Amino acid sequence: MKFLIIGGDAAGMSAASRAKRNDPDMDVTVLEKTADVSYSACGMPYNIADPARDINDLVVRKAEVFRQKQGIHLLTGHLATAIDRAAKIVRGVDTQGQAFEHAYDQLLIATGASAVRPDIPGAGLPGVLTLKSLNDGRKIKAYLASANVKTVVILGMGFIALEMCEALRARNINVIMTKPGQTFLPWLNSELSAIVRQTVEAGGVQLCMGDAVERIERANPLRVVCGAHSFEADMVLAGIGVTPNSGLAADAGLALGPQKAVSVNHRMQTSDETIYAAGDCADAFHLVTGQKTWIPLALRANRGGWAVADNVCGRNVELPGITGTSVFKVLDLQVARTGLNVQEATDAGFSPVEVVITSRSRAHAHPGSTDIRVQMVGDQTTGRLLGVQMVGKEGVAHRINAPAVALFNRMTVADFVQTDLAYAPPFGPVWDPMLTAANQLLKDL
Amino acid sequence: MKFLIIGGDAAGMSAASRAKRNDPDMDVTVLEKTADVSYSACGMPYNIADPARDINDLVVRKAEVFRQKQGIHLLTGHLATAIDRAAKIVRGVDTQGQAFEHAYDQLLIATGASAVRPDIPGAGLPGVLTLKSLNDGRKIKAYLASANVKTVVILGMGFIALEMCEALRARNINVIMTKPGQTFLPWLNSELSAIVRQTVEAGGVQLCMGDAVERIERANPLRVVCGAHSFEADMVLAGIGVTPNSGLAADAGLALGPQKAVSVNHRMQTSDETIYAAGDCADAFHLVTGQKTWIPLALRANRGGWAVADNVCGRNVELPGITGTSVFKVLDLQVARTGLNVQEATDAGFSPVEVVITSRSRAHAHPGSTDIRVQMVGDQTTGRLLGVQMVGKEGVAHRINAPAVALFNRMTVADFVQTDLAYAPPFGPVWDPMLTAANQLLKDL
Repeated sequence: MKFLIIGGDAAGMSAASRAKRNDPDMDVTVLEKTADVSYSACGMPYNIADPARDINDLVVRKAEVFRQKQGIHLLTGHLATAIDRAAKIVRGVDTQGQAFEHAYDQLLIATGASAVRPDIPGAGLPGVLTLKSLNDGRKIKAYLASANVKTVVILGMGFIALEMCEALRARNINVIMTKPGQTFLPWLNSELSAIVRQTVEAGGVQLCMGDAVERIERANPLRVVCGAHSFEADMVLAGIGVTPNSGLAADAGLALGPQKAVSVNHRMQTSDETIYAAGDCADAFHLVTGQKTWIPLALRANRGGWAVADNVCGRNVELPGITGTSVFKVLDLQVARTGLNVQEATDAGFSPVEVVITSRSRAHAHPGSTDIRVQMVGDQTTGRLLGVQMVGKEGVAHRINAPAVALFNRMTVADFVQTDLAYAPPFGPVWDPMLTAANQLLKDL
Repeated sequence: MKFLIIGGDAAGMSAASRAKRNDPDMDVTVLEKTADVSYSACGMPYNIADPARDINDLVVRKAEVFRQKQGIHLLTGHLATAIDRAAKIVRGVDTQGQAFEHAYDQLLIATGASAVRPDIPGAGLPGVLTLKSLNDGRKIKAYLASANVKTVVILGMGFIALEMCEALRARNINVIMTKPGQTFLPWLNSELSAIVRQTVEAGGVQLCMGDAVERIERANPLRVVCGAHSFEADMVLAGIGVTPNSGLAADAGLALGPQKAVSVNHRMQTSDETIYAAGDCADAFHLVTGQKTWIPLALRANRGGWAVADNVCGRNVELPGITGTSVFKVLDLQVARTGLNVQEATDAGFSPVEVVITSRSRAHAHPGSTDIRVQMVGDQTTGRLLGVQMVGKEGVAHRINAPAVALFNRMTVADFVQTDLAYAPPFGPVWDPMLTAANQLLKDL
């Protein structure tokens, strides 16, 4: 039984490790195009923030460990270029230019996602960088170490862009952020996004919204031109999003889902039942809408890898799906969400009702208390809880998990408001902000 | 329609306020034996920790506001002494010694709980104090301000005792804690309680377990004698537990439940359907065991008060019950739990399986990460999640709410492990500690 895996990061290495744990005799081969496997991509902004830290600290497990201790045939520098489904063979080329082919009985596509590169003149100039792979992180860190970088223009204002903004500010670098759209964090309720925007601007970051970047010019060393504005920069970082690496799957005739991610069923099988997909290249079921979605995040990549390994080993594992839970930190703010916002709820056919409340991070009269702003969405027709968004300086990141579990269980707002959440004065009010929001929302349902 | 309430703290004033919101014309009367209403009792240790803070800061809403803005007949200094169910009258005496009586159509007993006073010689000496009411807090604060208190002996090692230990250490006071039992925090898994014990001892606190206190003697000024040990003290604080104030209900022939708390149904009615009980004096349904329990905590008091008011106003509200979620802070540790421990699960007829795991508060290689120790209990027979306990320096307090919501929904461990919890490097590992514990527990179920 040959289990072949294309891609050696979260989903791929989780699958390889679990398959060998399930069945130590299984022939498990991983084809990884880079030299890096199993690293914490999400940790890169925090590593970049500190010049003293070695970026290789982010490697969770080294290639030798997978090879020697776990018995996985881990082939780095191996780029897969084609899947021959009839012959059950993957073809490719290694870093020496040598062609290779590997047969499989069961195949996992775990090719991840790539940073979108801006399609504008000057995007290829030295000093114009992106952040997705560990090697991208190395390049950014090396560039910051070698050049006297005083100002960075970041293209994009999504959560990676904001995490990098924080990292660069921690190094005392001036940051200018640009995006073509007029709305800062458009997926976030406007009252909440205004708080985030205020914090970012108060942190000395210049935000330029509403003008698309037209070109990047050589100057001293770089100039970013967008509409009426132009910005001198020592470095440009493109953080304008990611796209699933599904070309290999598409070329092999496999079905694609939202955003051209590889379409998978609850068992993580593609439209070819001997081929699985997991991680950032694969789509998922959204438990609130019941529909397919593409929200590439680390937990589902690891979980998907495990599920594939279990199914390859003859267990019958079905992943129910995701609720779209995420959190990020920017400067001293935590921003979290789970489930649907009003637009997504409307698009999915719900009749959303939204409330925004302000609560506090600690009890009445407790020192050090700060505001927590909560938006909560429920469905007028069924009374179901549909989503929560939250912004605050403390107590936001883990607080989002209670409504995430509620969404998993398809709870109504009326039921959620009865849940028994923890209280002590240093950690929140008697009525947790989640319950205060739910109490408020219940009045409108 | 006369709605009469005995007790003016969390449950009583929540009920009074909500009844007037529901029905502004309702005749709502509250009999409160002390001069204080609506204060944050849980906040007292944190207020006592800081000599500069006024303890009246803990008053959430003043009596005048309830009277003048909300139209509640709030009678402070009114001690209820008897309920005449046949005549539907409550009798009592006020602080001037005047007898009173008030008729009711519907009655709420919200008499709370009292600190247990040690039944030993010397318990009545000056400087031997307890903490339950705001006036208790005032006395402690006044005593600390007037006397030169260098050493306090705390009787008891429960969570109030530990919060007070932290408060006194913050004032640089030596603390000695005693209890007759041999086990520190016996409800907590031994690996977790060892961490708490180590932290408390490292904080300079002397723990003396296994000897009951025999007497408190006048010395210079006090001496606490327990077994072979005796401790000189400037002040003695009894934190040996609380007991429900159910004497009035019992004298009126109402049924009592666990720990002699007033027995209530899901509508919060006692065995007399025109008499409700809520707050620390009342029992509750435990959602995991399905059985009655007495776990007096602030959220259920507030929620119970609301439910009573809604039912009195003709709505039909049923409270499903509690899952026993709580958290406390001691020195730099957070200690949280929800659901059942192994002993409680066994007693309730489950076949509990327990795991203890150590995870981290932040992602791989993220600076500032600390250990989070998690104990999780599942049922061998049904696969249900039964309980979680957790100890750590950060990320514990709100993390307990995800399994609390899972318990509310009677989830299996296999389902809980699929929940979509938030991840970002500053806030936890990719697999949240809750999921790591559940993954581990699943292997044994």
